Amino acid sequence: MSAPFRHRLRVRYHECDPQNVVFNAHYLAYADIAITELYREAFGSWQSPMAEHGIDMVVAEANVRYLAPLRFDDEFDLVATLMRIGTTSTTTLVRIERGTQLTAEVSVRHVVVDATSREKEPIPAAVRKVLERYGE
Amino acid sequence: MSAPFRHRLRVRYHECDPQNVVFNAHYLAYADIAITELYREAFGSWQSPMAEHGIDMVVAEANVRYLAPLRFDDEFDLVATLMRIGTTSTTTLVRIERGTQLTAEVSVRHVVVDATSREKEPIPAAVRKVLERYGE
Amino acid sequence: MSAPFRHRLRVRYHECDPQNVVFNAHYLAYADIAITELYREAFGSWQSPMAEHGIDMVVAEANVRYLAPLRFDDEFDLVATLMRIGTTSTTTLVRIERGTQLTAEVSVRHVVVDATSREKEPIPAAVRKVLERYGE
Amino acid sequence: MSAPFRHRLRVRYHECDPQNVVFNAHYLAYADIAITELYREAFGSWQSPMAEHGIDMVVAEANVRYLAPLRFDDEFDLVATLMRIGTTSTTTLVRIERGTQLTAEVSVRHVVVDATSREKEPIPAAVRKVLERYGE
Repeated sequence: MSAPFRHRLRVRYHECDPQNVVFNAHYLAYADIAITELYREAFGSWQSPMAEHGIDMVVAEANVRYLAPLRFDDEFDLVATLMRIGTTSTTTLVRIERGTQLTAEVSVRHVVVDATSREKEPIPAAVRKVLERYGE
Repeated sequence: MSAPFRHRLRVRYHECDPQNVVFNAHYLAYADIAITELYREAFGSWQSPMAEHGIDMVVAEANVRYLAPLRFDDEFDLVATLMRIGTTSTTTLVRIERGTQLTAEVSVRHVVVDATSREKEPIPAAVRKVLERYGE
Repeated sequence: MSAPFRHRLRVRYHECDPQNVVFNAHYLAYADIAITELYREAFGSWQSPMAEHGIDMVVAEANVRYLAPLRFDDEFDLVATLMRIGTTSTTTLVRIERGTQLTAEVSVRHVVVDATSREKEPIPAAVRKVLERYGE
Repeated sequence: MSAPFRHRLRVRYHECDPQNVVFNAHYLAYADIAITELYREAFGSWQSPMAEHGIDMVVAEANVRYLAPLRFDDEFDLVATLMRIGTTSTTTLVRIERGTQLTAEVSVRHVVVDATSREKEPIPAAVRKVLERYGE
């Protein structure tokens, strides 16, 4: 059993709104960065398994639970786990932690599509095998 | 029974990503605009009921279902309905329609807090009464 | 002599930062919108002259003078003038006006390139002729 | 003579536009990050000299020269130099380097204002002394 994937960031000024906290939409951008970095560790880059297998991954659903605000200059960890690896889709949970405090949870479901036809495709076996290392 | 609140926008170039579609996080910004405009129609402005009652509204949860991509220059309607007006929170559904096509659904739950203490507060009766006009 | 091109917008919440004003980078996005809308009026769309002539336009230089802050919910006009139409480049001045107050000036120089080779190209005569209507 | 301040970043997916390059406005956000990080090294944080001296710094002018596009996943260095430290304003040059290639130059002029009155103020001597270390 391996530790979940973890990537540290710091809140940028322009990500904050007049309430002096990270704007709610930006949490989906953070989750996107987490998943990009997980793919970098797993495959060399986000694009690498896409190019190799002629696929693309598109976001079908996203959910955010906001538990405590992040503020300008806060350091935080994106902690990503593949919660479900289905036939044609994956669900990734990205927890946003500031020190020991869980500040938000973002869940993103991606669907695998053929890069050309944009039709749903099964996840290639080689991709699945690598992603399973990042499961619960 | 009134028609739901509707606000038309056009996709801006910088809202699109290299896949040539609106970036997934940006749908939460669109929903935020829809709710701001609904409050403008209902109360004069987003800030008006906040200032009058000494409250603020913070986003506690958001969900997006992506059904079809929006592209640069597309015109679309934000169609907002107050799905639930609870004791201390509201849930707003924002459907994103391009012509007759439903392209995404965004659901946002706001919690009412005291502007100073940031503690949960019941929705003021006068605010509730106006919001009920935008229910299903 | 025609009036300059004018397009009205309203400041969105997520465009503002913790100083409660529009974040400085966002003025370049506003200028981009102004130029897109000018091209819509002039050619039907931003992409239309690009597709027709096999060209693209890339930003080579941008300058912003910030005179007074814009705040959430402010309405403002983007007022665009083609200050210079050179052999291979254009310079557009976008003034940002709130009522009678000039709040910022953005100047953007675009270079015309071949859509495939990405090499500099002269501005097509037909495009030049239309753009001249938006000169000083 | 010290080396200029340097801070490494990587291009995020949502910073790129349909031309598959970093959107032009985003270079001002990069410059903002460079200046924040320079202040962190110099003073502990961006806010630290502001809070200590009751001042704020507002952007009065910004210029960008775009020399070569940055793309998704590119690593680059923000290299910041205080080009001018005037009586009430500073001008910071941020060069954006990808390996040995200069891809853009951003120049930002900040004006020092009193935090309350928002009137121009001389740069406090203690702040000036530290910033001089980051001059040419």
